[in-house]
Amino acid sequence: MINYNDGKGEFENWLITEDRFDPKYQGKCEAVMSLGNGYLGIRSATEEDYVGQTRNTFINGTFNKFDDYDVTELPNAADQIAIEVWIDGNRFNLDNGQVSDYRRTLNLLTGELSRSFLWTNTFGKAFKFDIKRFVSFTDLHLFGTKMSIKSLNQSANIEIRSGINGQVTNSGAQHFHEGEKQVLEGKYLQMVQTTTESKVDFVHNSVHSILTSESDIETSNRFEIKRRRVRMLYTFELGKDQGCTIEKVSNVFTTRDKENDGLSLAQIRKSSFDHLQKALSFGYDNLAAESSTHLKDKYKELDIKIESDNAFDQLALRFAIFQLAVATPAHDNRCGIGAKGLSGEGYKGHSFWDTEIFMLPYFTFTQPEVAQSLLEYRYFTLPGARQKAIKNGYKGAMYPWESAWAEDGEVTPVWGDADVISGEAMKIWSGFIEQHITSDVAFAVWQYYMTTRDEKFMENYGYEILLDTGIFWGSRLEWNDAKKEYHINDVIGPDEYKEHVNNDAFTNYTAKWCMENAIRYSDVLKKDKPNIYQKLNDKLNLDFEISELKARYNNVFIPDPNPNHVIPQDDTFLNLERIDLSKYKKQEHVGSIFHDFNLEQINEIQVCKQASVVMLMYLLEHKFDNQIKKANYEYYEPLTLHDSSLSLSTHAVLAADIGDKDLAYSLFQKAIRIDLGPNMKSSDHGLHTASLGGIWQIIVFGFGGVRMVGGELRISPNLPKGISNLEFQIIWQGEKLQIGITKEKLTITPTNLHATIQCEVFGDKVSITEERHFNY
Amino acid sequence: MINYNDGKGEFENWLITEDRFDPKYQGKCEAVMSLGNGYLGIRSATEEDYVGQTRNTFINGTFNKFDDYDVTELPNAADQIAIEVWIDGNRFNLDNGQVSDYRRTLNLLTGELSRSFLWTNTFGKAFKFDIKRFVSFTDLHLFGTKMSIKSLNQSANIEIRSGINGQVTNSGAQHFHEGEKQVLEGKYLQMVQTTTESKVDFVHNSVHSILTSESDIETSNRFEIKRRRVRMLYTFELGKDQGCTIEKVSNVFTTRDKENDGLSLAQIRKSSFDHLQKALSFGYDNLAAESSTHLKDKYKELDIKIESDNAFDQLALRFAIFQLAVATPAHDNRCGIGAKGLSGEGYKGHSFWDTEIFMLPYFTFTQPEVAQSLLEYRYFTLPGARQKAIKNGYKGAMYPWESAWAEDGEVTPVWGDADVISGEAMKIWSGFIEQHITSDVAFAVWQYYMTTRDEKFMENYGYEILLDTGIFWGSRLEWNDAKKEYHINDVIGPDEYKEHVNNDAFTNYTAKWCMENAIRYSDVLKKDKPNIYQKLNDKLNLDFEISELKARYNNVFIPDPNPNHVIPQDDTFLNLERIDLSKYKKQEHVGSIFHDFNLEQINEIQVCKQASVVMLMYLLEHKFDNQIKKANYEYYEPLTLHDSSLSLSTHAVLAADIGDKDLAYSLFQKAIRIDLGPNMKSSDHGLHTASLGGIWQIIVFGFGGVRMVGGELRISPNLPKGISNLEFQIIWQGEKLQIGITKEKLTITPTNLHATIQCEVFGDKVSITEERHFNY
Repeated sequence: MINYNDGKGEFENWLITEDRFDPKYQGKCEAVMSLGNGYLGIRSATEEDYVGQTRNTFINGTFNKFDDYDVTELPNAADQIAIEVWIDGNRFNLDNGQVSDYRRTLNLLTGELSRSFLWTNTFGKAFKFDIKRFVSFTDLHLFGTKMSIKSLNQSANIEIRSGINGQVTNSGAQHFHEGEKQVLEGKYLQMVQTTTESKVDFVHNSVHSILTSESDIETSNRFEIKRRRVRMLYTFELGKDQGCTIEKVSNVFTTRDKENDGLSLAQIRKSSFDHLQKALSFGYDNLAAESSTHLKDKYKELDIKIESDNAFDQLALRFAIFQLAVATPAHDNRCGIGAKGLSGEGYKGHSFWDTEIFMLPYFTFTQPEVAQSLLEYRYFTLPGARQKAIKNGYKGAMYPWESAWAEDGEVTPVWGDADVISGEAMKIWSGFIEQHITSDVAFAVWQYYMTTRDEKFMENYGYEILLDTGIFWGSRLEWNDAKKEYHINDVIGPDEYKEHVNNDAFTNYTAKWCMENAIRYSDVLKKDKPNIYQKLNDKLNLDFEISELKARYNNVFIPDPNPNHVIPQDDTFLNLERIDLSKYKKQEHVGSIFHDFNLEQINEIQVCKQASVVMLMYLLEHKFDNQIKKANYEYYEPLTLHDSSLSLSTHAVLAADIGDKDLAYSLFQKAIRIDLGPNMKSSDHGLHTASLGGIWQIIVFGFGGVRMVGGELRISPNLPKGISNLEFQIIWQGEKLQIGITKEKLTITPTNLHATIQCEVFGDKVSITEERHFNY
Repeated sequence: MINYNDGKGEFENWLITEDRFDPKYQGKCEAVMSLGNGYLGIRSATEEDYVGQTRNTFINGTFNKFDDYDVTELPNAADQIAIEVWIDGNRFNLDNGQVSDYRRTLNLLTGELSRSFLWTNTFGKAFKFDIKRFVSFTDLHLFGTKMSIKSLNQSANIEIRSGINGQVTNSGAQHFHEGEKQVLEGKYLQMVQTTTESKVDFVHNSVHSILTSESDIETSNRFEIKRRRVRMLYTFELGKDQGCTIEKVSNVFTTRDKENDGLSLAQIRKSSFDHLQKALSFGYDNLAAESSTHLKDKYKELDIKIESDNAFDQLALRFAIFQLAVATPAHDNRCGIGAKGLSGEGYKGHSFWDTEIFMLPYFTFTQPEVAQSLLEYRYFTLPGARQKAIKNGYKGAMYPWESAWAEDGEVTPVWGDADVISGEAMKIWSGFIEQHITSDVAFAVWQYYMTTRDEKFMENYGYEILLDTGIFWGSRLEWNDAKKEYHINDVIGPDEYKEHVNNDAFTNYTAKWCMENAIRYSDVLKKDKPNIYQKLNDKLNLDFEISELKARYNNVFIPDPNPNHVIPQDDTFLNLERIDLSKYKKQEHVGSIFHDFNLEQINEIQVCKQASVVMLMYLLEHKFDNQIKKANYEYYEPLTLHDSSLSLSTHAVLAADIGDKDLAYSLFQKAIRIDLGPNMKSSDHGLHTASLGGIWQIIVFGFGGVRMVGGELRISPNLPKGISNLEFQIIWQGEKLQIGITKEKLTITPTNLHATIQCEVFGDKVSITEERHFNY
């Protein structure tokens, strides 16, 4: 079980702790405590092996396709984490013997994972273990482990088996050739493996140092090279009260690393070996301290202070910010964020709308340079998006529902879980017809632009995305001659429990908004930046395409609210059967409705997987008044099972917006428990990175009331009862603003102002030039 | 730990038993207790999962190559054996809780594997488990499990998770595409997977039936289709004293099965489904009984009765005969026997000289139709052997050192374990220069021919092998102008601790013998079977090639004994350094010399991995007198580390031959402990099938003194002290002879005689027409 908030002093509200080892929670702990730095992600499987464990090491952007029947995925690279400890010839693990004083801790402030316990084996020999691990935030390639074992009551023969193991797979799919294995100078282990299809070379290095408490303890060692594996075997005898410390320092480099551009594999092997030698000379403690300092510096701008009746609120937010740093490839604009970050095999490392709609706002408002890098990634995927449009008979940029390496195009798998009725695998339609992703990317570009006013980005990348996504939607429209309207038929909206619907509200509204934006910025460019316009006109045939958009725009059908102010989710939703959903609303595990119905049947019921119309109200909020927001929230929420982790945060922000602070807070409590809650299976396949971004949004956008609305900054806090103080920093158009929110007042403090900031506070337009206080 | 001989009554000396569960012995038990029928082999991993476990299912002949850097190997097919039991939400396994009355038994008489124990979990709930498993000897595609669980003291929630799991690999190498998964009629699981390179389709089916002790226990079930996996989940509550029985019936078919020739995959899927439905209707008990009856019938001709001071002798022999039946593809002449049978990934399912020299004599003398099938396999590999000859600049048939599917040619991997000095993988030279395999195949053909007088086989297959292997050796010779002799340089003999030697005694002697045989049978055919000669002349250019052989034959150098009667193992062996080998002679694990020396260094020391000159004395025994045999045995044995499992049996037979019965018996004791002995790691990668054949040879050839010498039958028993009675059957030239050996006399009983048998008994030529007794 995971436990929280037992940190004291400096570490108060910085520690995620497991205080009892339970193999059932392995998957959860592996994901929740996973380490990484955006380049490298390592799931926190324990050093020793257990049944049901998943060892994952991912390097962002190194996608590979197992065969023509599979889609490309982030390959599970050779494991350098496992350390087997054999005591008197028996494999050590906590499943047998007696464990006490157990404690495993992810320290969010230092980024270090530690584990300590007393263990008495079935023969009565007692040992104290202390194990630490880090993945460096300073040096993206570096990670290390330090394991101390002390023999407490008797002497024992200890054997340590540790190295590099390339037998790992992605649930059975092997992405690497066998590769080359080598032991240099009798102790430096090197394994070079190449992905089978994308031909990315991985260079793994590990080295150990063994320090015993008494200098006369004799350590013997040898090495082993076996199939897909190279390792060291160290043996020694520990007397009573004697101890040893094993430091394992490792690194990994690939030929896809930006910094390795132009280097030969031989050069990378050599430099990675030098890198390892240097790291070894620094030693674990220095390397870990350096990384921790780097992380603490980062927090100076990112940490949010939250005073709440539930200290867990503070911790959960810090967890979100830490794991977003672990997941996000800030170092490389050719990579996106995986839907599970780098913490599991789920969703194959692919990027979804999760990035743009759920995570990007966090970066846009706090680390615009990271947001920029992630949007540049979407720019680099434009060729694939255009290919997808052409393949489907459309124009412009039709973004892939799932995206991997920039050149890959659409990578959504075609087959998913079993249909409960037919017993056959279900077809995943999202790659074909879940088309709102194109709007989502455009929205994120626009949100970034409005929030940063980064004209350089817009000129190099942004306008092209805004224009080409608008062009796509123009070409996507279907003329309905009876109604004399343009429709968008046969899609999946954000609510994936409705497939093949016509005129999905979210899709149609955002499509129309994309067209509107394309028309607007085309006109702006033509007038203000004729060179840019000309360049894009050459590329996108704007003169013709934009006039087409203009001709069609007014006839794009968007569903109006019905007399009860409810916007129909699609053409048929409001006419579908209603059933008693209470069983599923109370479910322990998401997706329980599939135990009773198949997707075909669910398609005919008024039930939603996640926010859809509610999501629309959130994104394009300037288009809807409060009455409509409230009516739709109240209609759709009871029908929504929140079977997507993307659902709760949207509802929470909307609840705050419509003034229901209690509901907003209770949804927040649910959202922060998606990964950190007691459900032991929820994070098995990896963390819900979108939800982590959503948690930040609930705090800053929901409770903090910060929003970019129609290009303008709005700050109208909605602090719920339990929270008495909230302090965070945002960056608005290059200016850093410190926001303080208490029960009594809102304080806005520019920390390094260059220009006056216009802002709407509780409905009033205000100018910020210095610290200002607004009492409620 | 494995325990023996606790069978009583009918099962006395038929049971291999483990009486305490110890995860350290997992690998050993998995291999030693593995089940199969020559078509299908399933390593006996337990139903529940443990760390360090290896789940293997192999179908003979279905080789696949992972990539161009790997050699073809027998792919590890989807697992249908695992059954997870979850009790009150916790995964059941024996690592925790209290186990008593534990017993796991492989019944060699019935072929059934069973396991029973009482288990009390950490919450104090007690259960009785009874688990049985069989792989059918009647129906090669069929296997099943029956698991009974009784709740002894409290009620418990039980969940059974079981199905087909294609996430398994060969130590990380995945040989299958994802494939299709389906659940038919809500319970019949089907998975179809295709090998990635050889494109063999595997059709796996499994179905469960759940029977609870009380009819009112409600069982709920659902199924799951995930990546490379399909399974059922059954849940029910057991009250105190209530029980349930889970029967899982499974089958597997492939498009490479002979019987499926010409059938489409769809037809195979359909018929395999029908097959499963039929099997389900029979039920576990009937299916297992049918297989057991079949096996008992088989034993009527194969079982050897051995009265010994050590009852283990009897059991070990039965074990050898059982596991040879499990390993041997008697059903398909396109398949060989793997060096580890079907019991592990070791040696990749490849066939070596192990088959011809160690296992084939058993079949030739007891089941000549199986020997014939195995030799036909070698005939089908002739095209690859000829290709190998051409590739190396030779003529004739140069057999691959390692052989897989008939068309594959040489499949020896190029890289092996690490060199202890350089830290790099060592090159495996056997595929290039361990050339005596060609002699070995020819020898086996000749031995089969002499023992059976199967002229039809010879005409269709045998002569061609004898002639073309002779032609190979003729072309392989190298003229030494200084000595005016033909040499054979740069080879590895049977002693693999000497690489790149010149004039290896075993190689040169057997090569010359092959040439001799080719000349002899060419002359015989020309004279007696001109049609056959003509056919082979057209194919092999005999007129020319045999005259070449004749011209060269007399000048082929074979090393003569030195003044001490010792035949030099090769040109330099006797001049190499001698070191103190006692440390390695006493080793616990084979290959310990590699902890101190690398192969390059071992190459310069008078040390042998295994019998080489001694092996030569054994195969071509008519060419050496007793004095020479004895001198060479006494010279080489002390230098031999028996690091190959092929070594002990040869030495044991030779020891018996030279009259040292005590030594012979003590080597026999070692040989039967290669797999069954206490060394927990020795069988991890699979059983030593050659050694199993060797065990039979020690008994029948060594103690029984049965031998084909120069084409004649010789029976001159050498019964060691501890054995008082030996009874077995051999088939000599189609006649079944029951052999009885006691301390006092030898009895030879023809059981169904057609013609007089000539035989040499203790140096006398005798004719057998009826039961005869020979007193010593």
